[in-house]
Amino acid sequence: MTEKKPLKQFLMIPGPTPIPVRILAAMNREMIGHRGPVFSRILGEVLDGLKWCYQTKNDVMIFPCSGTGVMEAAVVNTLSAGDKVIVCNTGNFGERFIKILKAYGVVVDEVKAPALGKTINIAELETKLAADKNKEIKAVFMQQNETSTTVLNDVKKIAEVVRKHGALIIVDAISGLLTSPLPVDEWGLDVVLSGSQKAFMVPPGIAAISMSERAWKACETSKLPKYYWDCKQQKKFADKGQTFTTPPESIIFGMHESIKMLKEEGLENIFERHALVTKAVRAGVRAAGCQLLADDACASHAVTAIIPPDGIDGETVRSEMRKFGVEVAPGQGELKGKIFRIGHLGYVDKLELVATIGALELLFTQLGAKGIEIGRGPKAMLEMFS
Amino acid sequence: MTEKKPLKQFLMIPGPTPIPVRILAAMNREMIGHRGPVFSRILGEVLDGLKWCYQTKNDVMIFPCSGTGVMEAAVVNTLSAGDKVIVCNTGNFGERFIKILKAYGVVVDEVKAPALGKTINIAELETKLAADKNKEIKAVFMQQNETSTTVLNDVKKIAEVVRKHGALIIVDAISGLLTSPLPVDEWGLDVVLSGSQKAFMVPPGIAAISMSERAWKACETSKLPKYYWDCKQQKKFADKGQTFTTPPESIIFGMHESIKMLKEEGLENIFERHALVTKAVRAGVRAAGCQLLADDACASHAVTAIIPPDGIDGETVRSEMRKFGVEVAPGQGELKGKIFRIGHLGYVDKLELVATIGALELLFTQLGAKGIEIGRGPKAMLEMFS
Repeated sequence: MTEKKPLKQFLMIPGPTPIPVRILAAMNREMIGHRGPVFSRILGEVLDGLKWCYQTKNDVMIFPCSGTGVMEAAVVNTLSAGDKVIVCNTGNFGERFIKILKAYGVVVDEVKAPALGKTINIAELETKLAADKNKEIKAVFMQQNETSTTVLNDVKKIAEVVRKHGALIIVDAISGLLTSPLPVDEWGLDVVLSGSQKAFMVPPGIAAISMSERAWKACETSKLPKYYWDCKQQKKFADKGQTFTTPPESIIFGMHESIKMLKEEGLENIFERHALVTKAVRAGVRAAGCQLLADDACASHAVTAIIPPDGIDGETVRSEMRKFGVEVAPGQGELKGKIFRIGHLGYVDKLELVATIGALELLFTQLGAKGIEIGRGPKAMLEMFS
Repeated sequence: MTEKKPLKQFLMIPGPTPIPVRILAAMNREMIGHRGPVFSRILGEVLDGLKWCYQTKNDVMIFPCSGTGVMEAAVVNTLSAGDKVIVCNTGNFGERFIKILKAYGVVVDEVKAPALGKTINIAELETKLAADKNKEIKAVFMQQNETSTTVLNDVKKIAEVVRKHGALIIVDAISGLLTSPLPVDEWGLDVVLSGSQKAFMVPPGIAAISMSERAWKACETSKLPKYYWDCKQQKKFADKGQTFTTPPESIIFGMHESIKMLKEEGLENIFERHALVTKAVRAGVRAAGCQLLADDACASHAVTAIIPPDGIDGETVRSEMRKFGVEVAPGQGELKGKIFRIGHLGYVDKLELVATIGALELLFTQLGAKGIEIGRGPKAMLEMFS
C-alpha cells in the first residue's frame, strides 16, 4: 500500500497565503511586451489600485523582489551614511531594519519592546525625539505588524509623535497592509512598504513602496549608493507606463486581479474579515489549551503566535500538523520551539481556521497534553460567527 | 462592427520569451510553505539544474529580482569602494554595469567596442591588463550577449586574457545563457549571471548568480554595503534547502519544469536550435531588404538588431507590426528608431520566425519601401531548414 497523504493542504503561514483560483487563472497567461501599450494599461491599474489600498495620493512604486527588498529601498532612498535614525524594534523584522541600516553605515538607536510579544513604550520614543534638539534624527522605522511576535503596533500614535519632531516615519506594512486600517495620508506616513504574497493573496515576487513629498525631498539629498532600488528611476519609468527593469509579469497579472477582488469586497469589509478571524483564532487556541504570546491589546490581525500546552515543542507542532495537511509557521530567532504561528491573512477562510484548531486539539491529545477537550476550540470559534 | 484584432500574439522580444503551456501549468499551483520539506526538494533540484545549465560545480544562488538585480549582486559581493575594474562595453548593458559600479564608488576603466554592433578589441584589454603591474585591477566585467546591439562577445578568449592577469572575470550571461555554449568551469568564469525570462522560457522574477572559489575569496574582503544581495546569506540558506528571503514560488515552480524540459532536449540541441534560428533570421531579413547591425562573426544567438529599409523608422516597424500581432523590440539609447530587434531565444519556433519575416515584407511594401519581393525572406529561411 502506498503511503497515505493528506488530501488537501491548509496553508496557515503569514504569507505566502493560499491563492484564489481566480488569481491563479489571471496569472496563467502568456507573456506580453513589457514596454508595450497593453502592459502599460495593466501596470497603471495596479499602481492606482495600490494607492487605493494605501489610501494615499503619494507615489507608489513596485520592485521585483521579496519584502526585504523594499525595506532596503526605504533605507537607501532616504538616508546617507552617518545619518541618525531610530528603529522601533518589536522583533525579528525590527532587527532586520537594524541590520540593513548598519550594513549601509547609518547610526541606529532603538526603542525596543520590553519583551517579545509586547509593543514599544511610545513615551520612550517621545523622550528620545524630544531630546534631539538639533533635529539630527532623520527617520523613525517601524513595523505596522511584526510578523515574528505577531504584534500590531500603534502606527497612528507613533506617527503623531514622529511628525511632531519632523523626522520621516517609515512603516514596514508588508504583512500588515489590508489586515487593519492604515490610512497613509490621514496618518501622514512618509514611506510605506507592502508585498504581493500577503493580504493581496498573490504569490511572492513584487513589493511596493510609497513615498510622500517629504520622502522625495529626503531622496534628493540621500547619498547612499543605489541603482536597482533607485525610486527616482522607478518613478520615471512608472510615469511612462513601464517599470525600470524587467517586471515579473505573472505576478503583476495576479496583482491586477487581486485589486479587482479587493475593490469588490471593499476596504472596510477586508479589515472586518481580518479582525474577526483574529478574534476567533485567539479564542479557539485558548480553548484548546494554549497561551498567546501577544496581548489582546496589540494582537496582529495577520498572524498569531501561540505557546503550546506544557511539554509540547512548537517545532513538533509544526512537523506533526503536516499529517493533517496543515502548514503552520515556526517561531523565529529565540522564539524557535517556544511558539508556533498561525497565519490568518489573505485568502484564509474562518471555517478553515475552525478545522485547523480542531486538528490542533487532536494532535495535543495524541501528544499527551492534559486537560484538552476535543471540540472546545471549534465551539468557541463557531459561536463568534453566529 | 467591433475593431479587428490579431488572433494570436507573436512575442519576438529578447525576454520575456513566450512560455510553454507545460511551464505555465507547472506554475499554476497552490503556494506551499517555503520553509518546508516539499519546497526544499524543488529548490534543490532547481539549483542543481542551474549548475547543469552553467556546466559548473560552483555554487549557484538565486535571488527574487530582474536581471539587473544580480548585476548589482555581482558588484557588491566582490568589490570595495575605490577598487579598480575594467568593463568590456559593447552597449547598453555594458553601460549599466558602469552605472552600478560608479553608484558604489568603484573606479571604472572601460574597453569600448569601436562602434555599436561591434565587439571589443581584445588586444586593447590585454594591453591594459599587462600594464597593471601591481595587480590593482580587481575584476573585468562583460556581457556574453549584449542585448542592445545583439553582439555575442568572445567570452572564452576574454576569460583567457583575464585569467592570465589574475583579475576576476564576471560575465552577465542573462540573455546569452543556453543560446550559445558557456562552459563556466572549463572557461574559468568567476561570476556568471542569468535570468528566468530568457532561454529558460519562464516569466521574469528570479535571477541566478554563480560564484567560483576565487569569487568567494573576493567576497570575504569585499566591503561594499549589502543586505538583500548578500550571497553568503543566500548560500547559507540554500545549504539548508531554503532561500534567504521569501522566494517567488510560482517562478521557481516554472524553473523546475523548465529544467526538466531543457534536460530532455539536451544542451547541444539547445545551442544548435539557437544557432539555426539566428542564421535563418539573418538570411531572412537580408532577403527582406534590411541590413544587420552586428557582423556575422559576432552575431548574438538570442536577438538580432535590424536596420530597416531606407526611409523606414524602427519605431514605426515596432508599432505597425502589432497589426499582425507581432511584438518586436525597439532600439535602445542612441539606436532608438534606427533599428528594431527580433528576439529568437527560448520558446520561439523557427516557423514563427518565417511568418514574422513574411509579415515584415508585407509591412515594408505597405510603407512604400523599394525592391521588396514578398516571399523572398521566408524562402531563404525555409531553404535552410531542409
